[in-house]
Amino acid sequence: MSAINLKSKLESFQEHWSPRIVSKYNGHDVMVVKAKGEFNWHSHADTDDFFLVLEGNLTIKLRDEDVRLGPGEMYIVPKGVEHCPVAEKEVHLLLIEPEGTPNTGDERTAATKVEI
Amino acid sequence: MSAINLKSKLESFQEHWSPRIVSKYNGHDVMVVKAKGEFNWHSHADTDDFFLVLEGNLTIKLRDEDVRLGPGEMYIVPKGVEHCPVAEKEVHLLLIEPEGTPNTGDERTAATKVEI
Repeated sequence: MSAINLKSKLESFQEHWSPRIVSKYNGHDVMVVKAKGEFNWHSHADTDDFFLVLEGNLTIKLRDEDVRLGPGEMYIVPKGVEHCPVAEKEVHLLLIEPEGTPNTGDERTAATKVEI
Repeated sequence: MSAINLKSKLESFQEHWSPRIVSKYNGHDVMVVKAKGEFNWHSHADTDDFFLVLEGNLTIKLRDEDVRLGPGEMYIVPKGVEHCPVAEKEVHLLLIEPEGTPNTGDERTAATKVEI
């Protein structure tokens, strides 16, 4: 049992859009991810999507507007809502998803989540 | 729909140990809280307890050891595990609990959670 230092966890890998599981919470994966560029448009039918920016800037494109997030800012995309995360420069995020949720909303294209 | 700035939310109140709900996530309350001093020993039979330090330092006392957290560090107390949060100086936290969870583990002594 020890503290989880999110910065240290982020320093342990370089890949973009490849979430690392840092802890478990009530059947959810708590993850850090480095992101850069545009992800894909997707939605999750069964879960809200939790984003907290730890470093850098993230835009979450929605069909009718954009949500712009800086460090210490968060946004929860309601389940079923289409969204597309975009980062011009590298951004570091804390994400929470139910265990087993494909990050793209589709198991065929989803990244493997590794526990670190 | 807009970004949730955690620092701004924290600047909107002064009370200690009085969580403010800033968003909802999959049936959970996402909250910010200011804390100072010692809380009480408690456990939650039905939920893990999520702590992320945004500013300051927090010690989570467990029966067999202490977990010390600084900014950007998190810890999840597994359900059923007795713990007692302590902060010598004011600490700012992000907390997540299922909606309706009493923060003390006991409805009779729990703080009312206000949505902001």
